[in-house]
Amino acid sequence: MRKIVFIAICSLFALSGFAQQQLGQRPRVQSPVIHADGTVTFNFYDPSAQRVSVSGDFNEISSRRLDMTKQDNGVWTVTTTPLNPELYSYSISVDGQRFIDPANSYVNRDISTLSNIFIVTKATGDKGHLYSVNDVPHGTLSRVWYDSPTLGQQRRMTVYLPAAYDGKKRFPVMYLLHGHGGDETAWGDLGRASQIMDNLIAEGKAVPMIVVMPNGNPTCNAAPGWWHEGMYTPDGNAFNQRGAKATMEESFMDIVNYMDSHYKTIRKREARAVTGLSMGGGHTFGISYRYPEVFDYYGLQSAAARMNQNDNKFNEQMARLFASKPKLFWIAIGKDDFLMQMNTQLKEYLDAHQYPYEYYENDGGHIWRNWRIYLTLFAQKIFK
Amino acid sequence: MRKIVFIAICSLFALSGFAQQQLGQRPRVQSPVIHADGTVTFNFYDPSAQRVSVSGDFNEISSRRLDMTKQDNGVWTVTTTPLNPELYSYSISVDGQRFIDPANSYVNRDISTLSNIFIVTKATGDKGHLYSVNDVPHGTLSRVWYDSPTLGQQRRMTVYLPAAYDGKKRFPVMYLLHGHGGDETAWGDLGRASQIMDNLIAEGKAVPMIVVMPNGNPTCNAAPGWWHEGMYTPDGNAFNQRGAKATMEESFMDIVNYMDSHYKTIRKREARAVTGLSMGGGHTFGISYRYPEVFDYYGLQSAAARMNQNDNKFNEQMARLFASKPKLFWIAIGKDDFLMQMNTQLKEYLDAHQYPYEYYENDGGHIWRNWRIYLTLFAQKIFK
Repeated sequence: MRKIVFIAICSLFALSGFAQQQLGQRPRVQSPVIHADGTVTFNFYDPSAQRVSVSGDFNEISSRRLDMTKQDNGVWTVTTTPLNPELYSYSISVDGQRFIDPANSYVNRDISTLSNIFIVTKATGDKGHLYSVNDVPHGTLSRVWYDSPTLGQQRRMTVYLPAAYDGKKRFPVMYLLHGHGGDETAWGDLGRASQIMDNLIAEGKAVPMIVVMPNGNPTCNAAPGWWHEGMYTPDGNAFNQRGAKATMEESFMDIVNYMDSHYKTIRKREARAVTGLSMGGGHTFGISYRYPEVFDYYGLQSAAARMNQNDNKFNEQMARLFASKPKLFWIAIGKDDFLMQMNTQLKEYLDAHQYPYEYYENDGGHIWRNWRIYLTLFAQKIFK
Repeated sequence: MRKIVFIAICSLFALSGFAQQQLGQRPRVQSPVIHADGTVTFNFYDPSAQRVSVSGDFNEISSRRLDMTKQDNGVWTVTTTPLNPELYSYSISVDGQRFIDPANSYVNRDISTLSNIFIVTKATGDKGHLYSVNDVPHGTLSRVWYDSPTLGQQRRMTVYLPAAYDGKKRFPVMYLLHGHGGDETAWGDLGRASQIMDNLIAEGKAVPMIVVMPNGNPTCNAAPGWWHEGMYTPDGNAFNQRGAKATMEESFMDIVNYMDSHYKTIRKREARAVTGLSMGGGHTFGISYRYPEVFDYYGLQSAAARMNQNDNKFNEQMARLFASKPKLFWIAIGKDDFLMQMNTQLKEYLDAHQYPYEYYENDGGHIWRNWRIYLTLFAQKIFK
């Protein structure tokens, strides 16, 4: 009897599905579907489209495009080859126009472009697992407005407090700087900073620390939409090009002073690290020789590390920095990074002066996939 | 001479524009463009589309659709009639498929659906201005993980600290609850809670207060993508239907206790308010008669306020609540709200028992536009 009822119900559902298609109603589409073997299926309903494809940063190749195939029910579909554990970004192209996948509400913004994201993970400890929210103690993520006397502004930054932060115990601080076109949301969203820190700390691979992610654009108070300039279209340049009262490096101690006066920080050199990517790597470099006694750990990630070798002041500042014996001066860059030459020149300069540093080189170029790796590595090297 | 150079440059641009179209390159599209008179122009490039329209909550009518007109350069366009100051949501329909406007990176998520947003504002003090980020002191917005012994979980909530919060002075607390399908991000994103509070406090219309926005789904630790269930497709039901250890109301004191032990709260009844929309209005109602001595202000917004008039315990709890003389029991609902009957029954019950309450009725139905209004009104009524 139970079986008959079951079959009857199935038939009703089948009829209902048929009726829905007859009436032109759309089938329910799930996308992406991540399979156990790491293959990923994308589905997109559009019976009238002529050509549909998925573009994403799959398989270590940037902007790989996969053509989708139309099925009888109007759903276009394609399945990838097995993907390595990673956070992936993609979009859908419909007859030449780029769209967000309507079935996937998980998106990241990079300057003014939204992309869908998904994570492939296969085992504890792989990159997908590291970038995921796991069942571990979680830190607090705050958007904090601080006063910058140097810039004459209230400014917004993101502060990660480790799960162990209780307002009593003091913690070391990593300052984590974004690149050109980014803002105080970049490391949290595109960089998965809070997930990486939660997981590294839970696994005992990094010590519990505060992570400060400021806004590196001295003419913006905050990320697009989060200050009084309104919902403008960010282009990565508009507000950088206006005259600022001071540079990021010149105003940087406002941030350190705010953190030291408002949070339970360890107010010592050996409990301060600064690292950043691209423009933020340049900021890190500028901060290193400008404030040699403030930080003990420096991480230059794909850094726009411009030198002024013909300037006596620069050479003196570099001499003073390395005379102060920082615990770590770390340079990380991908083989295909367009800033490789600039970083090679920096290494040559450091070698010529016998200034000690560590160097890490991996595959790939100037992409978030690498910066997530560099954050993961740097966070494990500091405060130990 | 200057004029000739100007004309020459214009010609170059014109040629360049022509060449781009010849090469099939897309024109740069800005969308939406908000004009001074409150009209709004939407632009969308798709030379091969057959029919394109914009759907949004324009002009007080939900889901109004505006057909767009294709221009020679492949850009579809439409301009609205003047819109009242408000936060609007919209999407674009291309040959029957719903998409996010690719030119607008400002989006809100409602359950699993992303929509673009924009704000129309005409004058200081109008709703658009109130929902905007203005050049006023800003509070801190934090995603905090707290321990819920009753639910046996670490759970995530959003905490707004007013700009004046300095870790020394104590502040009153408003608990602000979301509806069915929502989570701890809903009031901040769809409800513009931090902008409303920043602006009301800056204008002296609301007293500086802490605002706590918890997650009202006892089976979810956090918003989709922010707990260990991963990036599932939220449908507003999946996790509510699983067995929970306790209800939102039963576990609510865990949140109050966490706030009182971790923040500079005023730990008195007259410094505590609770308000919520729809399901969260139901939670507010349940909390009101469950913990009559904890809160002094209650705000039921479009509330799913189910009563158990035939249950002696319920009647006793209600009697005890009103014997305790709460400072405010506020019911707010729109004329077209599908929960109007339930709220009318509640009013009849309160009237029959001569329990004092305030009632606010306005146009419209069960929509965020109304809940932003209710938050604005309620925040000005409390702690004074």
